[in-house]
Amino acid sequence: MTPAQAARAREAAPSPAPGEYLAELEMLFARLHPEEEGAVIDTAAIASQVKAIVDELHPADIAHVLESLPLEARLLVWAQIGPDREGEVLLEVSDAVRETLLADMERSEIVAATHELDADEIADLAPDLPDDVVKEIVESQDVTDRAQLQAALSYPEGTVGSLMEFEVASIPEDVDCEAALQYLRKYDELPGQTDALFVVDRDNRVKGRLPLNTLLVTNPDVAVSGLYESEVATFVPESDADEVAQAFERYDLISAPVTDAQGRLIGRVTVDTVLEYVRDRQEQQELGKVGLREDEDLFASVFQSAKNRGPWLALNLCTAFIASRVVGLFEGSIAQLAALAALMPIVAGIGGNSGNQTTTLIVRALALGQVSMQNARRLLLKELGISTLNGVVWGGVLGIAAWALYRNVALGGVMALAMLLNLVVAALAGFFIPFLMDRFGRDPAVGSSVFLTFITDSMGFFIFLGLATIFLV
Amino acid sequence: MTPAQAARAREAAPSPAPGEYLAELEMLFARLHPEEEGAVIDTAAIASQVKAIVDELHPADIAHVLESLPLEARLLVWAQIGPDREGEVLLEVSDAVRETLLADMERSEIVAATHELDADEIADLAPDLPDDVVKEIVESQDVTDRAQLQAALSYPEGTVGSLMEFEVASIPEDVDCEAALQYLRKYDELPGQTDALFVVDRDNRVKGRLPLNTLLVTNPDVAVSGLYESEVATFVPESDADEVAQAFERYDLISAPVTDAQGRLIGRVTVDTVLEYVRDRQEQQELGKVGLREDEDLFASVFQSAKNRGPWLALNLCTAFIASRVVGLFEGSIAQLAALAALMPIVAGIGGNSGNQTTTLIVRALALGQVSMQNARRLLLKELGISTLNGVVWGGVLGIAAWALYRNVALGGVMALAMLLNLVVAALAGFFIPFLMDRFGRDPAVGSSVFLTFITDSMGFFIFLGLATIFLV
Repeated sequence: MTPAQAARAREAAPSPAPGEYLAELEMLFARLHPEEEGAVIDTAAIASQVKAIVDELHPADIAHVLESLPLEARLLVWAQIGPDREGEVLLEVSDAVRETLLADMERSEIVAATHELDADEIADLAPDLPDDVVKEIVESQDVTDRAQLQAALSYPEGTVGSLMEFEVASIPEDVDCEAALQYLRKYDELPGQTDALFVVDRDNRVKGRLPLNTLLVTNPDVAVSGLYESEVATFVPESDADEVAQAFERYDLISAPVTDAQGRLIGRVTVDTVLEYVRDRQEQQELGKVGLREDEDLFASVFQSAKNRGPWLALNLCTAFIASRVVGLFEGSIAQLAALAALMPIVAGIGGNSGNQTTTLIVRALALGQVSMQNARRLLLKELGISTLNGVVWGGVLGIAAWALYRNVALGGVMALAMLLNLVVAALAGFFIPFLMDRFGRDPAVGSSVFLTFITDSMGFFIFLGLATIFLV
Repeated sequence: MTPAQAARAREAAPSPAPGEYLAELEMLFARLHPEEEGAVIDTAAIASQVKAIVDELHPADIAHVLESLPLEARLLVWAQIGPDREGEVLLEVSDAVRETLLADMERSEIVAATHELDADEIADLAPDLPDDVVKEIVESQDVTDRAQLQAALSYPEGTVGSLMEFEVASIPEDVDCEAALQYLRKYDELPGQTDALFVVDRDNRVKGRLPLNTLLVTNPDVAVSGLYESEVATFVPESDADEVAQAFERYDLISAPVTDAQGRLIGRVTVDTVLEYVRDRQEQQELGKVGLREDEDLFASVFQSAKNRGPWLALNLCTAFIASRVVGLFEGSIAQLAALAALMPIVAGIGGNSGNQTTTLIVRALALGQVSMQNARRLLLKELGISTLNGVVWGGVLGIAAWALYRNVALGGVMALAMLLNLVVAALAGFFIPFLMDRFGRDPAVGSSVFLTFITDSMGFFIFLGLATIFLV
């Protein structure tokens, strides 16, 4: 265990009631802006009270506080955090908030903050740091750490390497439990989240794992060789991080060894890192679905936020504009029968709703690896069946409503037929768009919806107004 | 450790390449439907080959296979699974697929399958079983198990109790490490996911936790009382499950004790259960956003699927119909200037896109507990600022486009103004809808979007057509 980890473990007392300290801090900050003018503000006293609160907090709770506060108050809290904890807090805060904190730090302060971190943790921060600061950090490490840090920096995001840590407890295969225990006592403390020791041969190749659970309940004179589990999920740093995440979820793992191509133990992945990875990925997808390119600081400036959100609106503006031109083609028909304008958004809208249901299910099945060549055709037929059924039912309902409203049988018929056809289009689009996005290496969970809506809108207008032009005007 | 858990642990060898076995199985099933007519199908041989494959698989992998296969093939695989593993597989499959499997089982088979499960696991299955089967299962248990099962059945979904398991390793506080180790060796194996022993006093009240890591590296003669961590996040069964999930994520926990109101240890929650809970909840939200009420079996019948998806389409039909009636109010204006019909969907659509961005950020901030009375006003002002800025920029762009297309300055002006106003409406709706839903105890992540779109559509049409009626016709 590194001194950094030891220090952290001491402070890792979770807060009994998260949220309470936030209210406490906000009351303190309220005193910075007193209602009565000319009141004396004792900034130093407030700062020291803030310090007393944050000193008691777990780094994850400090991160939460920083994310929940506007910039001014955030920097006041940040200033009260000792240099030995800054690194850990930087790891915990969101990317957007981290930027605001780093912008407030001197270069030497940043380098100092990383001294308390492990190589893999520094690598997590590196993308947010200027290149020359990273270089300085690398140079400030001793030889072993520097080699590890350089390795950690070399793994691209989304690989197992980027989730890997180097601290790992292993034992040789040819000892007994007593010797294994002796061996372990050389550590001050085992690395966090160690649920098993990795059993290695003389060349440091992974042979299996010995759960601490088993070690603890076994008599000391039993040989490790007869005790360890030889079937272990191992990973190489180049693998896709999603692969690890799936294995952890499926097999309820706590830690798994990472080896080089020759099977030699070089590090491990732990469940807390995986949980964080899964969360981050989901959050990015959720934000990505509404075109928020990155995590947005809750208190970012209006201008910055608009810049973050603008491109999505521009993209949607383009697709809406094209759909609008489709309507433009039929202005002559609309001028003759204005009811068409009132009814056309219904056809387009329900197509979008229905297509999104299909897309959501296909995206999920793709992510879970449940779609094969064999069953894809079957799924498509099923989706077409559902949309036909829905089209007949809801198209019928709407056709009757249109007829009742406008006393025009033909209009009701056109409405019903257009609904049916657009729902079939929606099923096709909802089915194929995620496949194509997946094929072209884009995340189907993120961009499918905008393409889908574009198609269901344009086609909905085209089908409805086209049929109306043929049969009604 | 129960015999069931021991049996499972033996089989828990994760598959080296998930997906491969699925392809293998599908090739077998293809032989059930040979291309040439009259070919001899050796069903028994195929079944025994299927059995050979699934016998080697982890229950989670079997679940994955079952979920990826159409009903006929699924039941063929299911028939090859021994009664000692059926319970475990039932736990792993999705709700929708579980239903299809249970429908294929005799009552006595269901009761037998639960014999290999712990009380908390049976309680997880219970909601999908008929009441009289649950009663029979309860009666088939011995006295201790029956009491635990009844307790487990009594905790409502979404509480800590529903995530809790009863198997837990504890040690008295007044022993030394040697005695603790001796004590542990009485277990055949510790319960899975045990990262720490809970230290209890004579009344079984939780005093703290002793990480196995620490125990392993400490000399046997050290007293437990001086070694254990006394600050522990503990939970009661009645607490909200989300609270536990947040604590696990924030503090990187592996297991946490659950106590009764007097602080006596009654069970524990482990990280694998929490990870599953978090996943399930997110999945439900994702499906709920597009109105899929429940998990849908990939191979459900067209009719069943349509029933699952229908109510959402009906709801959207109603809102779209109301929005359509807003347009209906202005049919006179549209008949005079058909361009209005072409342009109005743009105003409504971009409002929806922009409002969804606001809603997504607010929902997230609410879920993370980052919104307080103090900063809510500030957030609202920020959102209004962004929408005004976007409204001026994109309203301007669209106004110019409308003017260029139709050579009508007034139309361009109306377009620009309507965009600006509808984006402001979208910001207000996007901000307040999640708050109100949260206030009324609904999950804002699920239903916000349909309300939002309703408002941005109706108001978008109303504002644009209303302004056009005043200034253009």
